[in-house]
Amino acid sequence: MTTAEDLAARVREGDLRLHELEEHADADTATAARRLIVAEQSGADLETAGAYAFDAADADPNIENMVGAVQVPLGVAGPVRIDGGALSGERYLPMATTEGALVASINRGCSVINAAGGATARVTKSGMTRAPVFRVADVAEAEALVSWVRDNEAALREAAEATTSHGELLDVTPYVVGNNVYLRFRYDTKDAMGMNMATIATGEACDVVEAETGASLVALSGNLCSDKKPAAVNAVEGRGRSVTADATISREVVEERLHTTPGAVAEINTRKNLVGSAKAGSLGFNAHVANAVAAMFLATGQDEAQVVEGANAITTAEVTDDGDLYVSVSLASLEVGTVGGGTKLPTQAEGLEVLGVRGGGDPAGANADALAEAIATGALAGELSLLSALGSRHLSSAHADLGR
Amino acid sequence: MTTAEDLAARVREGDLRLHELEEHADADTATAARRLIVAEQSGADLETAGAYAFDAADADPNIENMVGAVQVPLGVAGPVRIDGGALSGERYLPMATTEGALVASINRGCSVINAAGGATARVTKSGMTRAPVFRVADVAEAEALVSWVRDNEAALREAAEATTSHGELLDVTPYVVGNNVYLRFRYDTKDAMGMNMATIATGEACDVVEAETGASLVALSGNLCSDKKPAAVNAVEGRGRSVTADATISREVVEERLHTTPGAVAEINTRKNLVGSAKAGSLGFNAHVANAVAAMFLATGQDEAQVVEGANAITTAEVTDDGDLYVSVSLASLEVGTVGGGTKLPTQAEGLEVLGVRGGGDPAGANADALAEAIATGALAGELSLLSALGSRHLSSAHADLGR
Amino acid sequence: MTTAEDLAARVREGDLRLHELEEHADADTATAARRLIVAEQSGADLETAGAYAFDAADADPNIENMVGAVQVPLGVAGPVRIDGGALSGERYLPMATTEGALVASINRGCSVINAAGGATARVTKSGMTRAPVFRVADVAEAEALVSWVRDNEAALREAAEATTSHGELLDVTPYVVGNNVYLRFRYDTKDAMGMNMATIATGEACDVVEAETGASLVALSGNLCSDKKPAAVNAVEGRGRSVTADATISREVVEERLHTTPGAVAEINTRKNLVGSAKAGSLGFNAHVANAVAAMFLATGQDEAQVVEGANAITTAEVTDDGDLYVSVSLASLEVGTVGGGTKLPTQAEGLEVLGVRGGGDPAGANADALAEAIATGALAGELSLLSALGSRHLSSAHADLGR
Amino acid sequence: MTTAEDLAARVREGDLRLHELEEHADADTATAARRLIVAEQSGADLETAGAYAFDAADADPNIENMVGAVQVPLGVAGPVRIDGGALSGERYLPMATTEGALVASINRGCSVINAAGGATARVTKSGMTRAPVFRVADVAEAEALVSWVRDNEAALREAAEATTSHGELLDVTPYVVGNNVYLRFRYDTKDAMGMNMATIATGEACDVVEAETGASLVALSGNLCSDKKPAAVNAVEGRGRSVTADATISREVVEERLHTTPGAVAEINTRKNLVGSAKAGSLGFNAHVANAVAAMFLATGQDEAQVVEGANAITTAEVTDDGDLYVSVSLASLEVGTVGGGTKLPTQAEGLEVLGVRGGGDPAGANADALAEAIATGALAGELSLLSALGSRHLSSAHADLGR
Repeated sequence: MTTAEDLAARVREGDLRLHELEEHADADTATAARRLIVAEQSGADLETAGAYAFDAADADPNIENMVGAVQVPLGVAGPVRIDGGALSGERYLPMATTEGALVASINRGCSVINAAGGATARVTKSGMTRAPVFRVADVAEAEALVSWVRDNEAALREAAEATTSHGELLDVTPYVVGNNVYLRFRYDTKDAMGMNMATIATGEACDVVEAETGASLVALSGNLCSDKKPAAVNAVEGRGRSVTADATISREVVEERLHTTPGAVAEINTRKNLVGSAKAGSLGFNAHVANAVAAMFLATGQDEAQVVEGANAITTAEVTDDGDLYVSVSLASLEVGTVGGGTKLPTQAEGLEVLGVRGGGDPAGANADALAEAIATGALAGELSLLSALGSRHLSSAHADLGR
Repeated sequence: MTTAEDLAARVREGDLRLHELEEHADADTATAARRLIVAEQSGADLETAGAYAFDAADADPNIENMVGAVQVPLGVAGPVRIDGGALSGERYLPMATTEGALVASINRGCSVINAAGGATARVTKSGMTRAPVFRVADVAEAEALVSWVRDNEAALREAAEATTSHGELLDVTPYVVGNNVYLRFRYDTKDAMGMNMATIATGEACDVVEAETGASLVALSGNLCSDKKPAAVNAVEGRGRSVTADATISREVVEERLHTTPGAVAEINTRKNLVGSAKAGSLGFNAHVANAVAAMFLATGQDEAQVVEGANAITTAEVTDDGDLYVSVSLASLEVGTVGGGTKLPTQAEGLEVLGVRGGGDPAGANADALAEAIATGALAGELSLLSALGSRHLSSAHADLGR
Repeated sequence: MTTAEDLAARVREGDLRLHELEEHADADTATAARRLIVAEQSGADLETAGAYAFDAADADPNIENMVGAVQVPLGVAGPVRIDGGALSGERYLPMATTEGALVASINRGCSVINAAGGATARVTKSGMTRAPVFRVADVAEAEALVSWVRDNEAALREAAEATTSHGELLDVTPYVVGNNVYLRFRYDTKDAMGMNMATIATGEACDVVEAETGASLVALSGNLCSDKKPAAVNAVEGRGRSVTADATISREVVEERLHTTPGAVAEINTRKNLVGSAKAGSLGFNAHVANAVAAMFLATGQDEAQVVEGANAITTAEVTDDGDLYVSVSLASLEVGTVGGGTKLPTQAEGLEVLGVRGGGDPAGANADALAEAIATGALAGELSLLSALGSRHLSSAHADLGR
Repeated sequence: MTTAEDLAARVREGDLRLHELEEHADADTATAARRLIVAEQSGADLETAGAYAFDAADADPNIENMVGAVQVPLGVAGPVRIDGGALSGERYLPMATTEGALVASINRGCSVINAAGGATARVTKSGMTRAPVFRVADVAEAEALVSWVRDNEAALREAAEATTSHGELLDVTPYVVGNNVYLRFRYDTKDAMGMNMATIATGEACDVVEAETGASLVALSGNLCSDKKPAAVNAVEGRGRSVTADATISREVVEERLHTTPGAVAEINTRKNLVGSAKAGSLGFNAHVANAVAAMFLATGQDEAQVVEGANAITTAEVTDDGDLYVSVSLASLEVGTVGGGTKLPTQAEGLEVLGVRGGGDPAGANADALAEAIATGALAGELSLLSALGSRHLSSAHADLGR
């Protein structure tokens, strides 16, 4: 049987390349061999990275040149009561993070939300997008292509949907810049985050465009999608799920549990999250929504790079006519799935199970909706807690005590 | 000795709260008890989450309500040759991700960069910021506060620096919006990412402002910092490290290894990364820089929520006079550290060791600079690879083969 | 007969207020009286302001508290050949400005465009928007309102269109932020710029929303319209006319007439208009499109405050396969009309006549389309000229000679 | 003596070109000749355009190919009491516009501001910018250039200031994107708007950069200035004057004069100007600041294309502890001058006289500061009036009555 040492030796000798090892041994052995090579080159000790608790072969769809796994501490906030369109009841929120004080802060927010009877959450828009860019001769041809697309959406749909058993093409929106035409395809990808599905389906549709018109495909993604970039098109029009969570917290709870007042929280939200973000030229009008998004993405196998768009969120806070505190968080472009991608990895699948949303939903899409609602609620809890902490002035001391 | 079952029972009985368990047992037992509770409530199996390979007590500064750890597959790209201001030589780039094809893609980019003699990388600006917001009576008082700050920067520096043995206050920039005054404090935080240092130091400086002027602190962070939000202030002025990596790839290498041409890559970059992003109202003019940033952040213990600002990057590509391909990636606000935060956790420390940048640098700050340069190089490799793949039209098939 | 002196005396005595004078004398006398009052208070000589060449009564729909008129020098560039969707042939471009060198620069661009056989221009999207904001109880009600709107667009259309003989409601797009729901109504307003038509029609539709749902109208404009603000929603989705003009200039013409090369122009466009604007966090990826827009708006009676959105433009420049220069300008949100507003004033009507687009078009909307195409061509000429001037390094000397 | 008909004939014969006429006749005759040519080509009647009330020769620095003048109705709002840093007392605000209801609306706002004892206004930052872009070999050279600039600011200042008797170079800020280095020069240009001064001075400084380093100037403006584009760099860092006006209106006045309540105005401001603009991806967080800016720019000879940046404004509104209404408008980048440009034209000079700010101020810069404060006050009046109108629900009816 080939050992890791054997493989490493063959790499050293130039006989094998690092990414070819799985062809000559099982995945765990290949992984161990790479640790030897990398440790040798760098002087690093990779012992803990090698102490992963799953079969390397199971990570095959997720990684290449595997050397092990990174272990990120996992905590829970809650349970928090959620009244969602797809998720109802109490849930612990799984969060993987290295930022001390974060889970404690969100936990405090969950506790206050529960005291208010729970959070309301809804997905208000949904659709995964891919926007190829085509080159045309000039704007006359650009205009003709735009017309052609409007007249031939059915043909594009047929081509696109032939590639997928689940996905549905919702619409195609053209944008013209000089001799560039961008077509933003939007899909219902059900419980999948859907980037790959959308990319493959759009590729087929592009073939139709090229076959039927004079347009030439430049790139299957023309950045009007827009994936993993902080773009206004997502903040305005949404991508993945547009989801809001809100709650009304009574004045008593705000005062007793959060040691501040509804008026103070509303004022801080306005001066910091709205006016401060406005002056900063920001697409994120919130305190730290990205924290909840990143931690829950990591805990549930989402794509960490898509935290970028997840941070396109607006937090509002106001004093109600009754003197209570209304607070909401609206995430414009939360790209989540409960099937595919990293969701099958063991710890990540367990994270989904904690929320009760592992795998395909019933109806299809319901689990991804529910995940979006849970994340929005986590974000809401985080906003409520941090704004209140600022209100009662102990942000820096909280970090001094808990974090480092 | 208290067992996890004992603790869980006491939680069920309402005798203990979930976050109090560490007061009654060691950290691993407390963690196990929480798994019991969460599993019971949710029906989730948390076995793999519980199979973490470090002492729970070691994660104490990083997490609360710990139930275990999430394990994310770790791969390596490279080694790639980097000619940096702080890092020179060949490095494997550690990347933790669940997105299939990503490491392979960056690996291909590294290989091409090596064929060109390596990448050049430089940190061109540096400084961690915190921007409290103060309320004043009106704009007359706002203007007076701005003047006071300009005249009293020394006093603010003294107060701020009294809280830290390493950090230095670089400057304070005031911004006025009505009766709000935002003071953006910028610090040299050496090898620490520096958010906590900056927050604590700024807190002290705020006390001076409040004691000496009529201004009233509303929030220690007024969002002009701007942390974990996609904000233009960071894209323009930088936060953490502003870092660029570039390389010139010969036409032969582009054609033979990337199966495209310098002209095609430059054209795609213009139509997609520049014009497409422009039309999208984006702060990210790149293809997928967030992927490299997120994966290397995860592998080295950085704050995953700060991927948001890391994606404020601009990629350029052009054909040189000699017909070769010049390509660059400039990340405006890459917030990284090699001490503090998640960097002490075992797998993350190993990730830093792979790059040779664990702990404090010599001189102070050099390791964080080197980490920034390594990440920029990884991003460059990723851009080069994806743009070329688009050029040779196999993006969707690459995903179809490798990803899911 | 009442004289200006009489009226002024009554104002001084507190008998009349400044805006009431038209009730007691003809418009010119009232205007003269105000000049007396204002001159007296300020010491200003208002003689030239009073030497306007039209009946004050004719300006009644356009101004209140009239004291006279501002006279802005009017020049012409061209004639330039335009191959548009609505406008074809040679046109002088009327431009009112006080910026020396501007008309000369655009004139030079027109001359070069003619040498290339003219510019191509097309309106690729069209629609005037108004987006009221409604308050609802919470996000559950927000989602319900969004559904209601989707199901009741016909009722909204009926209400809206009842207020106008020309306008047509194209679509209504809902956006949710917490307990705020924004409904972006988009209209075909034909040859009118259409803000007032859209506002009035939307007001009626809002009554239906309030009558049929629990939503409460907060403001008839909720800033997602977005009028007279530099907003991404317009840059991405358009407002008024989305219009592009382009041209291909032969290498010979670029070299002989512009004293630069296609490559130099393309490089400057990339480094300045694309990369520089990207780094600036801009919604305007061009050199000085606002100059042409402002000057032609002024010359044709458009709303000068809408120059703000007119500047949401992207300029592209590239070397063609034949070595020539392709250049384009795409204006996302050019709000223009040839009826209503300032278009009836005598000098402004003459400006429209110079372009041959005064009054309603045939078919309806054709004149406003043609005006948009003419302005886009003027912008194209300006971009071509300035980029070339930068290429041949005489920007500062041009200003030194001509401007001040 | 040469007549207009003579000149026109020579143009028709191809003997003269349109822009050469001033070489053969006085300016008014040349202007008349062009009217003949343009009228003939277009069929337009240019009679009123020709009825301008100044010597065409006086417009020579402002226009080329002059055919006459556009006449825009001029009204006044106020007088309004202003307590500014540079302007104190009551002023009529001159406004040239064709938008019916605008002057009336701002006039109403002025009246309410007076009832509150006037507006406070202050310039909080000042400086005109020009940002050339240089090309370097790679990022290593970029970093070296950044260092060189930091070490040689004195030499750059000397070169820049040699070109101007008034201007002072305040600072130079470098920005790096790949092999592009942008240097943002910021000047105190006193009472001049300063674009030309800044351009010429920066041109000299660029010569020094090119002589002393390996950098090559690509364009004297690299769009990080940023002129006439809606850019975040201006919204964040300012350009021209950053100016704020504010006022506190008693509850009684709000109720009796504006027919609404402080709470309603604050709520509308939050839902529309803050949250609505946030969702729109806007750099303008206000209702219609551009209206006041455009109208006062036109009335005082400012550059109409710079309305684009003038609209980068944030409006705040809040209920004070006493139940009154605090309202403010902060304009980040208001580029104004009282000398040069269009300020010497007769009607425009009269507009400046109405404000008492014509020509150079004492100390230098005071008049331009005062003009900025006056415009900010006009914008404040407009915001107050429109927000209140929305509060009392008569926006559409106001337009129905007054506008068209």
